[in-house]
Order: sequence, then C-alpha cells, then structure tokens
Amino acid sequence: MRLSRSFIPTMKETPAEAQIASHRLMLRAGLVRQTSAGIYAWLPLGFRVLKNIERIVREEQDASGAQEVLMPTIQPAELWRESGRYDDYGKEMLRITDRHDRDMLYGPTNEEVITDLFRQSVRSYRELPQILYHIQWKFRDEVRPRFGVMRGREFLMKDAYSFDLDYAGAVVSYRKMMLAYMRTFQRLGLKAIPMEAESGPIGGDLSHEFIILAPTGESQVYYDAAFEEIDYLSRGAGGFSHDSAADLHRFFGEMTSHYAATDEKHDPAKWAQVDQTRRREGRGIEVGHIFYFGTRYTKAMNTTVAAPDGTHVHPEMGSYGIGVSRLVGAVIEASHDDAGIIWPDGIAPFKAAILNLRRGDAGCDAMCEALYAKLGRDALYDDREERAGAKFADADLMGHPWQIIVGPRGAAAGMAELKRRATGERVELTPNEALGRIGCSA
Amino acid sequence: MRLSRSFIPTMKETPAEAQIASHRLMLRAGLVRQTSAGIYAWLPLGFRVLKNIERIVREEQDASGAQEVLMPTIQPAELWRESGRYDDYGKEMLRITDRHDRDMLYGPTNEEVITDLFRQSVRSYRELPQILYHIQWKFRDEVRPRFGVMRGREFLMKDAYSFDLDYAGAVVSYRKMMLAYMRTFQRLGLKAIPMEAESGPIGGDLSHEFIILAPTGESQVYYDAAFEEIDYLSRGAGGFSHDSAADLHRFFGEMTSHYAATDEKHDPAKWAQVDQTRRREGRGIEVGHIFYFGTRYTKAMNTTVAAPDGTHVHPEMGSYGIGVSRLVGAVIEASHDDAGIIWPDGIAPFKAAILNLRRGDAGCDAMCEALYAKLGRDALYDDREERAGAKFADADLMGHPWQIIVGPRGAAAGMAELKRRATGERVELTPNEALGRIGCSA
Repeated sequence: MRLSRSFIPTMKETPAEAQIASHRLMLRAGLVRQTSAGIYAWLPLGFRVLKNIERIVREEQDASGAQEVLMPTIQPAELWRESGRYDDYGKEMLRITDRHDRDMLYGPTNEEVITDLFRQSVRSYRELPQILYHIQWKFRDEVRPRFGVMRGREFLMKDAYSFDLDYAGAVVSYRKMMLAYMRTFQRLGLKAIPMEAESGPIGGDLSHEFIILAPTGESQVYYDAAFEEIDYLSRGAGGFSHDSAADLHRFFGEMTSHYAATDEKHDPAKWAQVDQTRRREGRGIEVGHIFYFGTRYTKAMNTTVAAPDGTHVHPEMGSYGIGVSRLVGAVIEASHDDAGIIWPDGIAPFKAAILNLRRGDAGCDAMCEALYAKLGRDALYDDREERAGAKFADADLMGHPWQIIVGPRGAAAGMAELKRRATGERVELTPNEALGRIGCSA
Repeated sequence: MRLSRSFIPTMKETPAEAQIASHRLMLRAGLVRQTSAGIYAWLPLGFRVLKNIERIVREEQDASGAQEVLMPTIQPAELWRESGRYDDYGKEMLRITDRHDRDMLYGPTNEEVITDLFRQSVRSYRELPQILYHIQWKFRDEVRPRFGVMRGREFLMKDAYSFDLDYAGAVVSYRKMMLAYMRTFQRLGLKAIPMEAESGPIGGDLSHEFIILAPTGESQVYYDAAFEEIDYLSRGAGGFSHDSAADLHRFFGEMTSHYAATDEKHDPAKWAQVDQTRRREGRGIEVGHIFYFGTRYTKAMNTTVAAPDGTHVHPEMGSYGIGVSRLVGAVIEASHDDAGIIWPDGIAPFKAAILNLRRGDAGCDAMCEALYAKLGRDALYDDREERAGAKFADADLMGHPWQIIVGPRGAAAGMAELKRRATGERVELTPNEALGRIGCSA
C-alpha cells in the first residue's frame, strides 16, 4: 500500500483521553478511532492486525478439530429466560426491543444460543464429541469503558463450546482447548501463562485464565520459568496427537505441575518451594479463559442425547474464550517502546515499510518502486512528500518489523539500509539482500 | 471433514415455513438455522460458503484499490441527527438505549459513520480519492422477514464509500466499483446484469442495481445477450488498468450501451430496436447497488478538504453495496435442481464429497482414507454408517461440485466413480485420475 494514498491517519500529539500505552499508540498510529464511548472503528492498519490475530486463532481452533460456525449478534430474550440468566445478567447486557415489542439483546456470550442449536440437531452419543466455535462481535455495556479496545463495549471474541457425553470426555475437550490456546499465543509472539482460576459453583480444577506478560499489565504474576521454555508448537505435532487422550493428559499434567499464580491467589509457601533460579515475576493481562461447567445449560434447557445404554443424558459442556480485539491492545502493551509499537512478525499489518527519503530523486524512486513491486501487499511504501525525520518517526510508531530505508546516496551506489524495529539494528545491503533477509525471495 | 463428526444437520422433510427454494435447501442441507424471526446462525457448511463469497468480494475490492476498514455495528444516534436521517428512517432502524440513556442504533448502513471518520482525518485534496469499504453485519427490522437469508433482519453486507474532490473524480470511482462488481459476480459463477436504477433526488445516470439471473427471481428482466458474452475478468487485466480513467470510461460505455431493464422500467419501443437474436428475458434477483450521491452527507456533516486553489470544498461521495449473506441464497436460487444445491466451483463449501458406500469394508475404507488424506480441507468425507441411498441423497442435497463414490466392487479393482454434480455425469477412474480431474494434484 502506498502511504500517500492510504487511510492511515497518524497523530503527533498524544490523545488526552488515552491512559495506557496501547490506547495511546493505537490512536496515534491510526489503527482505530472511537465512534462512541467504548466503541471503535478499525482503520486499515488496525484492521489488518485484527485479521492476522483472527487467522491464527482460527487456524489453531481448526487444527484442534473445532468447527467454525457464526451465531448472530442479536439474540432472543426467551433463551436467556430459559437458562435463568436474563434477569441475573444486569445492566451489562444491552437489552433491545424490536418493532413488534419482542425482547432481544446484543449477545455478550453464547451459551444459550449454542445449546439451542445443539439440541435441535444432535440426538445420539455417536455424534459426540463436538466443539463448535465462532469469532463474532459481542457487546457488554460497561459502566465506564476505558483503556481503548482493552475494555471496550463492542468487542470481537472467539468463543468455543464443547459437548461431551460424560465428564471424562469433557476433560479431553478441555485439555485440547488448553493446548490450542498455548499454541495460539506462541504463534502470536506472546508469552502466556495458564493460571488456575475461580471455578464457580461446579468446583474442580477445570477453569484457567491465560495471562500474557506485559510490563504494563493489570496484575502481578508469579510463575515457573518452565512456561517460557516449552515449545508449545512441538506439542500437537510430531508424535503428539490432538486427539490422543493420553498425550493431552501428559500435556495438562505439564501445565498444571508448575507454579503459576496472580497476586490474588499467590501462595508464598508454595512459591518458596520453587527452585530459586526458576522463579519469575512480572505483570500480566488476561486474554483468555477456559471453563468447564458440566450440565449447567443442558439441564436448564432440557437438552439430552441418547447414551449407548439407551438412556437419555445431559451432555457435559465447557466454554473457551479468547478476546480477539483485546489482544490487539495486549500485544502492544507487551511489545512497544517510547517510539511506538513493535509488532511480532506473525501479526504485523505489514512485514516491511519502504521509506523513500527523497521522492523525486530518480534513483530513490526506482529502487523503492522495484522493492514495492516485489513485496506487494506485504509492504507499506512511504512515498509521501515529508521530511525524512517524519518518515522515520511514523515507521517506528507504526511498528513494522522491518524498515527498508532508501536515500539518494545509497540508491546511487545500489544500496539500501535495512532496519530491524525490535532491535534498532541497521545494516547496509543491496535491495535483493534486504528482501532475502526479510524472507521475501527476490 | 468427516461427516460422522460434523455439525451438518441435514433434514429429509421440507420445512413448512420455507416458501422459496433457497430457504428450503439452506435449512435441509444444514447451512443455517433460524434463531429469531429473520435472524440466522450459520452452521459449518453455510459458514464456509459465506466466507468464500466474502473472500471473493474482498479480493475484488482490494484489486480496485479500495481499503478495508471495519466499522462497529452499534452507532450513535447523534451522527444520524446530524445528517437528518434519524427521524426519517422509520421503524426499520433498530433503536437502542444504553445504560446511560444514550440513543444508539444498530447500523442499517454507514454513510454517517464513514463521513465522520473521514472528516476527522482527511484535510487535503492530496489525500483523495479514497474508497473505504467494510464487510459487516447490519440490521434492518423488517416488518415481515421471510425468504430465509434473502430478506433477513441481521445480514452481512459489503458497503464501500468513495470520496473524491469533484464530480469527474466521483465518476471514475463509480466506474471502478462497477467493474469490481462485474468481476466479483463472474467469479462467483453468476450472470449479473447492471440495470439503471432510480437515482433519487440528485438525478443523473449514476445509480445501478445488479441483478443476477435465477429462474425463481423476484422480477422479470430484459437484456441484451452482450452481458452474458463479456469476460469481465479480461477487463481490469492485461492492457486494462483499474486506475485508468480512459479504460474505465470505455468499460462504462460498454455496460450502458446495451439494453437492460426490469419490468418496471421496461421500454418496449427501445426493446424492439435490439436485434431479435440478441434479446434475452429471465427472472432476476437484486444483489448489489451502486449509487452516486454527491455532497449529500459531506454538506450535512460539514466535511471539507482543501482544494488545490486553497478553497475548502465538500468532497463528492458514492456508496456501493453487495449483500453478502443474501448472495448465498441468491446463488442457490440461480443454481439448484430437485435434488438439491449445485454450488459453483468458486464458492462451494467443499470441492468434493467422498462417499464410502460400505464402511468397514477394508478396500473401501483404505481408498477413502487415502483420498481424504490427499484432499484434506477440500473434502467432506461421508464416513457415516448409512445406506448408500442416503449418502447419494445428502451429497446431491449439499451440492458439492464433485462426488467420489467408493463401493466395494470398484475398490477391489482399484477404481472409484467420479460424479459431476452439475451434469450428473459419472465416470469410473482410478483415485489418482479422479483427483487429477478435480484439480488436486495427487
């Protein structure tokens, strides 16, 4: 994309309303604009990041055997009356009356709708297990929306729901999702720690939050170094199968044997038992939650399947959420510096920026156009009539993993400068060498 | 995907509430389920079609130079008060009051929001033209929703908005979108005719509806055979540039020089002048609309940019819509028979179904598994314990372009049967020959 023709409105000033780094940087780099309190429009740069995160989340859900569906945003109140949650949910639920005076609502979550879809279609244990997921906008009418997309009212979430015949099956589905989550976060370039969470009225140990490490995180976390050392992509690959209960059991054991807690649940006695060289502390942001809740909804909504012995049983359910739009903010909290965003390679809106330091100089223009032709959709070409300083600042602000800097002297000598955003390292290379370094075959 | 483990609930009975073919077939083939009047959940099979259509629409928008953004579903009423449409819009607008008693609405269209985003950021003619689009769920609270996704209340739409400095520029943007639309419909496997439409208060000839031909269409259409003969993919390729005003002028001339009208605007006198051998009649369904409306919103919303002469002018706008979820129904109306759906290759949920006619037969199982391993995500493997007749019926109903039928006798001889859904043609082939015919290199 040519920056001169792009809808990427960067801002020099720091917006007064933004209290945290990701909010400031998302506004300044032109990723989003607020349209109402806690509601954002995603501009081209932000939209690309959102889609990249969505794609990785989707690929890992698919790899785990979950099936993608898409439930609507507007739900009928009657399903929530059936589950007993309509009155309990309070003012965070956006309640709507349609032209025929029917009570509707903008879905904050989808347990009721998915259970209703399931009970209309599934009759027998032979059709189980099922994990269904969707990536859809949700609405929670927060009293005081803030922190940009980290705590917005309209937000994009991946939510999955598992249906199993019995508890043993539900445990397998739960572990499968835990693995999918750890793989997802690693691919997003994040360090994630699964933390045992409040399990609610059902009890048991099947409730985990996923906290990613970010210096500006909302809570203090304590964890074993093991979580940073495991290559989650090697689990679920090679000899390991997503569908093997034994492999998943082993993985779950690995995840739960190491110490991890937020300050609320921190246990200094247990912490003292962790080898001193392996103790890690940091700040964290919650970006996902997985949760087993058994027959809570299938009972309330009268949902059964035929079991092998001919009886009818209520399937066991779990739900599994990742905050997709929240992750855009969380990634920035985890990866930025004073100059701007530092995108992990896997989700950057553009792999590289091409900085033409002197538009109109024949050598600069030719080298930049040639680079742009090779990189195509992967490059943002800064062809604006701006000072070099403004171009450097904007490229750092937007956080492209690579910058290819083309000035008149270098261009005359057939050389460009390649800068790695994360390290600041700059090297002089030919355009083809630079493309090779970026991972684009010339 | 293995059908035995899929969430694809097919139905043998024709649902009573469905009046038209696409609605019946979408329910019967397990593409969607209604969750409230005029509101649907997309199950895995339907979701894949929706995403395939979305992808083609997106690729053609991108190719035309439009930039993708994503505006929220919930909009503030104040923007609609500014444009003067809030009171006019009537009961089709889903009006919402949030917890702080602010008037909000579920966007039925996005002229106000996009104009607001534009005026916050764009200051100068140098940043024009801009075409911004998004693919987002919209809501129109129809009095009597019906015809399934063809006239639902919550629906997915691609809407684009162009901003140009002057009328001449707006004309170029308009023509660019017309070309993108004709290319899109051709890639979707549809015959589309652009029809001059009511242009509203502004007048002029810059308003076109796009009608696709379907025997069950809602309106009678009359058109010149030329529209069926043009290869739109050759426009915008080769020597033709999306950005050349001259090329676009030529293309627009070609589109508007041939006769095309729905019965409402049909002119028998003009029709008589069309060469008799070139007259075509049929039924049609509206799936898109492009519309130039000048400074209607930029004036009402006080939006200006600096012109080259230093004055401030109101940019000229157009809007361009394609009904993405509606297209799923429209494609089925255009392409089905008594047995079920016939998906065009470009948007089919699966390229092929593999029909294992005798599960448990070692030869059948081995051949099917080998085919499934090769086709992967492109295949739906019918591994259910069902009669052959049920498998044939479901494969025809779901409408996969190809069926690979594996029975015990053929498998023993190393042969499968390949059926083309559109023609019913069946040939005996080795598995590798079948894969080659489908276009999957073995």
